[in-house]
Amino acid sequence: MSQFNDVSITREANIYFDGKVTSRTIHFPDGTKKTLGIMMPGDYEFNTEAKELMEILSGDLEIQLVGEEWKKIAPGGSFEVPANSSFKLKIVEVTDYCCSYLA
Amino acid sequence: MSQFNDVSITREANIYFDGKVTSRTIHFPDGTKKTLGIMMPGDYEFNTEAKELMEILSGDLEIQLVGEEWKKIAPGGSFEVPANSSFKLKIVEVTDYCCSYLA
Repeated sequence: MSQFNDVSITREANIYFDGKVTSRTIHFPDGTKKTLGIMMPGDYEFNTEAKELMEILSGDLEIQLVGEEWKKIAPGGSFEVPANSSFKLKIVEVTDYCCSYLA
Repeated sequence: MSQFNDVSITREANIYFDGKVTSRTIHFPDGTKKTLGIMMPGDYEFNTEAKELMEILSGDLEIQLVGEEWKKIAPGGSFEVPANSSFKLKIVEVTDYCCSYLA
């Protein structure tokens, strides 16, 4: 277990895909933000605006970036998604993640 | 939308009922804590240790405290659960909540 200190958190959740993907937004003193989220089993596609670093805290999933092969990500693993791109996810087991929005 | 400032948040989620109920723990400077959570449709029962204040941010649900009738709670509504008790929930639509643990 680890924690983020001296942060602000938006009370209301971000809710996508009828609640199968949800997250909470964390605001850091340096102006950056992260989301902490849960994805239920299913297939999803997301678009990015900023570059994203997705860190997998627990779960079982595969991801596919544009033009790349499907890739399994283990808990403790991570992947980056370019800005203004998209990525596909196959969530096999409930997945807990931390997404950092990079400049 | 509202936010909690100057708090710490545990990075890893609390995961119950195969992920159908999940939450994040927020630690306040005064030593108190709250959880922000999501409940997917389904029937659940929870036990309390501390007294709890459950505030419903969005969703559709009914709750039953020990020895009481089922009661519908609207978004913006709340209910308290005594310490060392339990409560039942029928979640009709994805529900976003804030749970405060009271002394």
